[in-house]
Amino acid sequence: MKFCSGCASPLLYQVPEGDNRERACCPSCGAIHYVNPKIVVGTIPTFGNKVLLCKRAIEPRYGFWTLPAGFMELNETTHAGALRETWEEAGAKATLGPLFTMFDVIRAEQVHLFFRAQMDAPEFSAGVESLDVKLFAEEEIPWDELAFKTVSKTLTLFFEDRRQGQFTLHTGDVYDHTDWPLDSFKA
Amino acid sequence: MKFCSGCASPLLYQVPEGDNRERACCPSCGAIHYVNPKIVVGTIPTFGNKVLLCKRAIEPRYGFWTLPAGFMELNETTHAGALRETWEEAGAKATLGPLFTMFDVIRAEQVHLFFRAQMDAPEFSAGVESLDVKLFAEEEIPWDELAFKTVSKTLTLFFEDRRQGQFTLHTGDVYDHTDWPLDSFKA
Ligand SMILES: [Zn+2]
Ligand SMILES: [Zn+2]
Repeated sequence: MKFCSGCASPLLYQVPEGDNRERACCPSCGAIHYVNPKIVVGTIPTFGNKVLLCKRAIEPRYGFWTLPAGFMELNETTHAGALRETWEEAGAKATLGPLFTMFDVIRAEQVHLFFRAQMDAPEFSAGVESLDVKLFAEEEIPWDELAFKTVSKTLTLFFEDRRQGQFTLHTGDVYDHTDWPLDSFKA
Repeated sequence: MKFCSGCASPLLYQVPEGDNRERACCPSCGAIHYVNPKIVVGTIPTFGNKVLLCKRAIEPRYGFWTLPAGFMELNETTHAGALRETWEEAGAKATLGPLFTMFDVIRAEQVHLFFRAQMDAPEFSAGVESLDVKLFAEEEIPWDELAFKTVSKTLTLFFEDRRQGQFTLHTGDVYDHTDWPLDSFKA
């Protein structure tokens, strides 16, 4: 961030009065441009004992499998955003269940929220960001071809909780999203 | 947002290729400037049967009582942010418990996360954003002087769950944060 989005003046990085962090400050109009983590919302869509995964048609991680998820938009709730992504990426309608995982992905400056979701029918289709969409039983999950750590952790916890017959919220952090360079992820 | 923060060119609002929403697009450098909801993290700090509240020394809602909470920063987890706010606003050290409420505050473009937290000692002090900090028993809570709906909902649910002897995660949405004009809140 080099210029003020309100008045186009060059920004100065300094600690505003009463604050304790450096921010992008505009010396002309006085605006302070804060940058905060973004929320990624997604689902674990299930039909019977199977979970729906999408094969990514976009970078990063083109060709790898993921749960449907994406950035939460303005003017929607986390619940609505999770269902919207499930529809856009996987062409699936579902009934949302409770929040299941919340992961801080620190280096990517994101918080990932995955909700359990019961598909209304075994109907789905690849959206523009997906090459393929498919239902997988636990023993069919392509563990070595999953796109992101938050997806593999969420799936691992999901199957563990399911075996124990009780689902609980899991929170934690993932410093890096995956093992490939961050630049390719944030692009 | 009128100008590109990367190159200072005037922005155009249009739907980028492959997207389905209007975004602030830069015709010069090609940057797309997304705007997404922000995360507010806070705690319900308790010592014995009492809850710690802060009297706000800043607008909006100057003089009203709130749970310690504030915007999540980059390079911290939701947990670390919640404890940081508890320290900055209430001068209290606490041990974080589970996530207790997650509220979408749609009009304010925020998601509020409140964690239960056990204070390490009955020690606290007003930070620069607080006029006063005090421990309240349930019957002492100043319900008519609470700053935000997410705070009053969180406290109501906290006492309900405590009476039932079991705490669970509660999620929901609050279209408006409070009944006063939004402009004063977002300022
Ligand atoms: Zn400016
Ligand atoms: Zn530009």
